[in-house]
Amino acid sequence: MKRVMLVVAYDGSACHGWQLQPGKRTVESELNQALSGLLKEDIQVIGASRTDSGVHALCNVAVFDTDSRIPGEKFSYALNQRLPEDIRIQSSRETAPDFHPRHCNSRKTYEYRILNREFPLPTKRLYAYFTYVPLDVEKMRRAAEFLVGEHDFASFCSASSSARSTVRTIYSLTVEKEGDEIVIQVCGSGFLYNMVRIIAGTLMEAGSGSRRPEDMKAVLEAKNRGAAGPTAPACGLTLVGYEFL
Amino acid sequence: MKRVMLVVAYDGSACHGWQLQPGKRTVESELNQALSGLLKEDIQVIGASRTDSGVHALCNVAVFDTDSRIPGEKFSYALNQRLPEDIRIQSSRETAPDFHPRHCNSRKTYEYRILNREFPLPTKRLYAYFTYVPLDVEKMRRAAEFLVGEHDFASFCSASSSARSTVRTIYSLTVEKEGDEIVIQVCGSGFLYNMVRIIAGTLMEAGSGSRRPEDMKAVLEAKNRGAAGPTAPACGLTLVGYEFL
Repeated sequence: MKRVMLVVAYDGSACHGWQLQPGKRTVESELNQALSGLLKEDIQVIGASRTDSGVHALCNVAVFDTDSRIPGEKFSYALNQRLPEDIRIQSSRETAPDFHPRHCNSRKTYEYRILNREFPLPTKRLYAYFTYVPLDVEKMRRAAEFLVGEHDFASFCSASSSARSTVRTIYSLTVEKEGDEIVIQVCGSGFLYNMVRIIAGTLMEAGSGSRRPEDMKAVLEAKNRGAAGPTAPACGLTLVGYEFL
Repeated sequence: MKRVMLVVAYDGSACHGWQLQPGKRTVESELNQALSGLLKEDIQVIGASRTDSGVHALCNVAVFDTDSRIPGEKFSYALNQRLPEDIRIQSSRETAPDFHPRHCNSRKTYEYRILNREFPLPTKRLYAYFTYVPLDVEKMRRAAEFLVGEHDFASFCSASSSARSTVRTIYSLTVEKEGDEIVIQVCGSGFLYNMVRIIAGTLMEAGSGSRRPEDMKAVLEAKNRGAAGPTAPACGLTLVGYEFL
């Protein structure tokens, strides 16, 4: 028996998120099906980040156990033959038998893309949130600075979360302009439910002028979801980095 | 009666190209339907570039005639309410009543994107052609230089073309690396059927080493479709610039 780790990229547009849901197409269900078909065993992967419906990933992580003699690094090729084209394994390798991707320290990086121009561009619609409201990147940056470090992010956590502690550490939070796109990149030890999308929604309010950058301090202190801005739509969000420490 | 010009962006993934085809969804059919519904007149647009199935555009051009009192610049807003989300008007304005977008001098710019890495990325699959064969950008550039200027591009024209002359002028043809993508950008007075995709397919052969850059001269001189490389897939191609001179 060995444990194999997969690095998985996907376009979340047509998936009901990562996690198994009865009767729905999810990244996890597609991986289980491809692996079980390949190995003629009943395989259930364990995922690292259970991304929501519509969220994309360049490098989510999953592990599974198998008795197969296929070398760990060959799974990427074999699985990509069986997976639908919106899911592609980026690498595979054998890992420690007790490695659990959710029970270890990690550093995740998410990117939130905003297309900020007069009219939407159809070729960007699946991977960026569109708004015609002009956003001031400098104001978004000033607001972002207040969130870096260890804080209680209760205000940035959807009410439906069951997290025991709402304290998290953000290592970096940058806002960059790339042509007519604004890219928010956030790196942290872990994120609460919808945390990155609520940060994006709140930074957009700072960028549009409907909220002052320095008000972010009070938003954090409120420890109340109602104090922050809206949850930005899923399509703009991509998991772009995953490191195990 | 006035003539209105539309600048149209679209994601070609789910369209059978620009041009009307019985029973098929095309960009032209969607524009005619949205305009006819808005104006309660039977509107038939005239398109500038009749892009193929799967090809994208940021700025194709169409004109139509109407008795409507809607000001030219308001059509973009009104039409975007009615169009499907893979087609968006970028601007609209009244133009000269005799302006015909295919019967005037213009300068078009196309971009061909290649994702060049070990495995495909699902979030790029609709807008870039994927190949794991390593491509040498410097060799592609050297090959590209032979094509700049006025030439008989018969070797770069699909056999099914009905063009009277196969002489065209390429003003510029660049090859740039953007991360793991290679971007070919070509600007010209006009292009033969499949010309940009055949140029892309031939430059990829130069990049992979299966053809020497300096052989491009002989390919041009052959004036024979068989002398050039394959027609690169439609998904990598986007019309990115359109100027009327």
